[in-house]
Amino acid sequence: MKKMTLAVDTMGGDLGPSAAVEGAFRAAQEFPQANLLLVGPEEILAQEMRKHGDNAHISILHAPEVIDPGEAPTTAIREKKASSIVMGLRAVKNGEAQGFVSAGSTGALLTGATLIIGRQPGIERPALGTLLPTAKGFVLLIDSGANMDCKPAYLLQFGQLGAEYMQKVMGIASPRVGLVNVGAEAEKGNAATKEAYPLLADSGLNFAGNIEGREIPAGAVDVAVCDGFTGNVILKFTEGFAKTMMGMIKTELMATFISKMGALLAKGAFGKLKTRFDYREVGGAPFLGLKSLVVKAHGSSDALAFKNAIRQCVIYNEGRNTHGI
Amino acid sequence: MKKMTLAVDTMGGDLGPSAAVEGAFRAAQEFPQANLLLVGPEEILAQEMRKHGDNAHISILHAPEVIDPGEAPTTAIREKKASSIVMGLRAVKNGEAQGFVSAGSTGALLTGATLIIGRQPGIERPALGTLLPTAKGFVLLIDSGANMDCKPAYLLQFGQLGAEYMQKVMGIASPRVGLVNVGAEAEKGNAATKEAYPLLADSGLNFAGNIEGREIPAGAVDVAVCDGFTGNVILKFTEGFAKTMMGMIKTELMATFISKMGALLAKGAFGKLKTRFDYREVGGAPFLGLKSLVVKAHGSSDALAFKNAIRQCVIYNEGRNTHGI
Repeated sequence: MKKMTLAVDTMGGDLGPSAAVEGAFRAAQEFPQANLLLVGPEEILAQEMRKHGDNAHISILHAPEVIDPGEAPTTAIREKKASSIVMGLRAVKNGEAQGFVSAGSTGALLTGATLIIGRQPGIERPALGTLLPTAKGFVLLIDSGANMDCKPAYLLQFGQLGAEYMQKVMGIASPRVGLVNVGAEAEKGNAATKEAYPLLADSGLNFAGNIEGREIPAGAVDVAVCDGFTGNVILKFTEGFAKTMMGMIKTELMATFISKMGALLAKGAFGKLKTRFDYREVGGAPFLGLKSLVVKAHGSSDALAFKNAIRQCVIYNEGRNTHGI
Repeated sequence: MKKMTLAVDTMGGDLGPSAAVEGAFRAAQEFPQANLLLVGPEEILAQEMRKHGDNAHISILHAPEVIDPGEAPTTAIREKKASSIVMGLRAVKNGEAQGFVSAGSTGALLTGATLIIGRQPGIERPALGTLLPTAKGFVLLIDSGANMDCKPAYLLQFGQLGAEYMQKVMGIASPRVGLVNVGAEAEKGNAATKEAYPLLADSGLNFAGNIEGREIPAGAVDVAVCDGFTGNVILKFTEGFAKTMMGMIKTELMATFISKMGALLAKGAFGKLKTRFDYREVGGAPFLGLKSLVVKAHGSSDALAFKNAIRQCVIYNEGRNTHGI
C-alpha cells in the first residue's frame, strides 16, 4: 500500500501556525503510517519545525498568501492562488495528498474544496458533518451548514455520505440513518423531507425513519440527516443554550455558601463532562462528498484539536476504524 | 367594559379533567375580571366542581365527545362536533368566549382553531409561539410548529404577531424582532429568509436583523422568527439535549462519594434552575393570528399550568401586562 500523505493548512487557525505544526508533530508520532505536508509560508514553518526536531514524515509546501476571514469565499479562492487553502487543496487535487485539514474560513474552504478537489461521482452537493456527543456515543449531523435549500435527492446523498463516514471512522458496521423531522410518520414534515423519506427508505441504508429533535441527543441514530439551514441553526442554538444553562447553574451555585461548597466538591464531575463536550476530542467537522476527505477544524483549534483532525483523515483513508475515537 | 369569558377544554390533558378544573378555580380567584367556561361532559365536570365549592364566575358548556390523540385532525374536527375542542372553539366563534385554552391534540387544535375561529385580517397563516427562558427573560419562538414550508410574507407576519403578543403579554414597549438565520449578513440564509429580511426591515417593527442560533438563548431578541419546521426541530432538540446533559451531569455526580456530597449541598441551586425551565410557569404556547387567542397547554399540564395558560388569555385580552409574568 502506498503511504498516504495528508496536507495541513497551518495558517487558518486563531492560534497561528505553532498550534497546527505542534499538532502535526503529535500526529506524526501517533500515526507513522502517514506523511504530513505542512502548507504555509516556508520561513515561518521552518522556524516552527525547529522547535520539534527532525521528523522524516513531515515536509513543507510553501504558500505565502493568507485568506482573511472577511473575504468573499469565491473571490478569495480565485484570486489567492498562493494561499495555504488553495495550495493545500491543489496538492490533494494533484494526488500529492489524500486529505486536507484546515482551521481557516469555512466559506472559503467549502467553496475551494468543491471547486478544486471536485465532487464524488453521484454526489450533487458535498455536505458538512458535525460529530455531536449523545447519551450513547456520537451522532453525525449532516448537513450542518454547507447547503441552505436542499432538494430531496441531496438529503438522500447526505444519508449515504454520513453512513459511509460513520462506518469508516467510527467503525459502526451498519449505521442507523434518521431523517430530522417534526414527527415520526412518513407524511410529516416540509416538502423536502416528505419527498426524501421514500428515497431514504428505498436506499438500502439502515434507515430508522423520521427522528424528532429530541431523539438526536438521545442517540437514537448514528447519522441525522437535515438541510444545512436546519443543521446550522440547531448546532448554534445548542451551543448558546448550553452556555446560557451553564451560566444559570453557576449563578445559582454561587448564590449561597452551602451550594458553593457543593460546587467545589462536584468540580471533578463537571470537569469530566466538559471533556465529553470538548470539540478538540473530535478535532473537526468532515466535509463529505468530495473525491478526498477535507476536515474543517475549529477556528480556535490547538495542537490536540489539529492532531485529532489529522487522525480523522488517517482513519478515513485507511477505511476502517482500528484506533478508536 | 364587558366582562371577558374564557373557554377551557377540560378533556385534552393527560391528567384528566381534575387538573383543568382545579386550574380554572385557581384562575378565577386570581383573575375575578374573567368568567370561565369549562368545556367537557357535564356530569364529570359537575362532580369535579363540587370538590371546589361554588364560584359564580365558573360555568359548564356540555361537550360529551373526546378527540383521541391519534385521530386525523381534519376528520376529527369535522366529525366530532360535540367534542370539547370543537364546542370550545365554537363558543369563541359565536362570541360567547374571547379566548380558549386546551391541552388536547396539537394538530386538532390548530386545524380546528383556524377553521372555526378564522384568521385575523391580513394574516395568511396563524402560527404557534413558544416562550423560552433566556439569560435575560423570555423569547417568543414563532413559528414553533404550525407551518412547515413558509413563504417570506408568512415570516413577516410571524414577526408582527410575535411583537404584538410580547407587547401585550410581556409588557415590552418595543419588542426586538430577529430573523433566525445562519449568519448576520442580510444575504445569508435559505431562499425564504433572504426574501423575508427586506420585508422585516421595511415593516416598521423593531427589527434586529438576522440572529444566529446561539443568540436566541442569550436573549438578543424578544421575538425569534422562523418557519415551523426549524422552530419545532430546535425546540425538541433542546428538550432532548437538556435531558441528555442533565443525565450526564447526574451520572458524573453520582460517580464518587465526594461529588455525591457536592450534589447534595448544591441541590437547592439545581431546584431553582428547574423552576426557571418549568413550562408550567408559562402555561402554554399561544396560537397567534386568529381572531381570538388560543393557548395550547402542554399535554401533561397540571392545575398550575392550566391556571397560567388562562392567565395568558386574561392578560392578552386586557391588552396590557399589569400582572407580571
